[in-house]
Amino acid sequence: MRRVKCKIAYDGTHFAGWQVQPGQRTVQSCLEDALEKIHKGKKTKVTASGRTDSTVHAYGQVVHFDTPLAVPEDKWSQALTPFLPRDIQVKEAEYVEGGFHARYGAKEKEYRYRVLTGPAKDVFRRHYTYYVPDQLDINAMREAVSQTIGRHDFSSFCAANTDVVDKVRTIFKAEVLQEGDELIFVFRGNGFLYNMVRILVGTLLEVGKGKRSPESVGAAIRACDREAAGPTVPGHGLFLWEVVY
Amino acid sequence: MRRVKCKIAYDGTHFAGWQVQPGQRTVQSCLEDALEKIHKGKKTKVTASGRTDSTVHAYGQVVHFDTPLAVPEDKWSQALTPFLPRDIQVKEAEYVEGGFHARYGAKEKEYRYRVLTGPAKDVFRRHYTYYVPDQLDINAMREAVSQTIGRHDFSSFCAANTDVVDKVRTIFKAEVLQEGDELIFVFRGNGFLYNMVRILVGTLLEVGKGKRSPESVGAAIRACDREAAGPTVPGHGLFLWEVVY
Repeated sequence: MRRVKCKIAYDGTHFAGWQVQPGQRTVQSCLEDALEKIHKGKKTKVTASGRTDSTVHAYGQVVHFDTPLAVPEDKWSQALTPFLPRDIQVKEAEYVEGGFHARYGAKEKEYRYRVLTGPAKDVFRRHYTYYVPDQLDINAMREAVSQTIGRHDFSSFCAANTDVVDKVRTIFKAEVLQEGDELIFVFRGNGFLYNMVRILVGTLLEVGKGKRSPESVGAAIRACDREAAGPTVPGHGLFLWEVVY
Repeated sequence: MRRVKCKIAYDGTHFAGWQVQPGQRTVQSCLEDALEKIHKGKKTKVTASGRTDSTVHAYGQVVHFDTPLAVPEDKWSQALTPFLPRDIQVKEAEYVEGGFHARYGAKEKEYRYRVLTGPAKDVFRRHYTYYVPDQLDINAMREAVSQTIGRHDFSSFCAANTDVVDKVRTIFKAEVLQEGDELIFVFRGNGFLYNMVRILVGTLLEVGKGKRSPESVGAAIRACDREAAGPTVPGHGLFLWEVVY
């Protein structure tokens, strides 16, 4: 058996998230079904760097699985594609040591959240951006986002329904990019709590709308209280962008 | 009764084209269903600048319909949106004279065709671009596309199954734009035959791949023979971009 590491992309629109759930279309189940066919009926478990929720996209999710097959590493994408739906794409594959683990080995993750601004929605980006009609103060949001950088207890930015005990995470990079009529919120860190990026963006958008001050974001972190942060923005603007090992 | 002119956008992915067809989901039937609800059960016919095929998109389709309702023109979009699916968007609406006709009054149309180039497909643009893995000679395609400008009999660039007799059309603008990893084929003219843009792009891509010379495009026009042109590219890269009256 050899372990394969794959970089995959998926359009989360029509998935009930990453993880297998009975009766639901998930990315994990589609990948495991494809591998079962390639392995002539033998079930193969696929492990990802982390789950993504319903409607959340991945540009660079990383997964691993074990196989007895001797497919050349540059042929894994071709081998899997005929068995995968068109909304999952295998971008890269390589053989790795048996000790490699897509989840436990992840050192850095980058998430990006796309916000569409301007006078009207765009029908072609309805699944990939969150539309915000309000005028947004980008300088205020940039001042606010810089306060998230560093090692903090992010309890305020974590959905209540989580089992995770240690809520300390380190953010290496946090910025707001302007690309045409979109704002891209970029967060790079050693790990993220459940809904953390979506709550961070929801809080930053409140800053952008003038509903709260830039300084209130640092205060919200220090409060360690979910009530101190803003709302959770929808999943469809969120992309798991990159995972580094 | 007053006549309303609307500019609409739609994502063609999940439509069997513009025109009402029994048992099919079409843009026209969705719009007419929405208007029927607004008019309390009274049927309202919607006329477009022209049909679009299955999977073809519209960024700026124009339609008209007649109504007895006194909805302010800037409120038509809001009035229709709750009754429309999310893949149709009403961008603008205005009252026009009764003599206005979305189809017969159209003076200019612009179509754009998006081709994705580069080493790999993009799962997020699979419905909006046609992926071409080959290296393309953009200068050769630009030389070729310039030959389509002007007044020509475009019989060679028309699908066989058409009732149209007069196949003379005038192209005002024809160009190949490079935007990141995409090539955008732009055609602006006084009208287009059935599949004309898709056959033009199919022929230009043969030039780009070195399968035919740039001069052969002018020769294909003069031949007035469908066999002299290239293949029809898929509908999902095509956008009806603008209609001018």
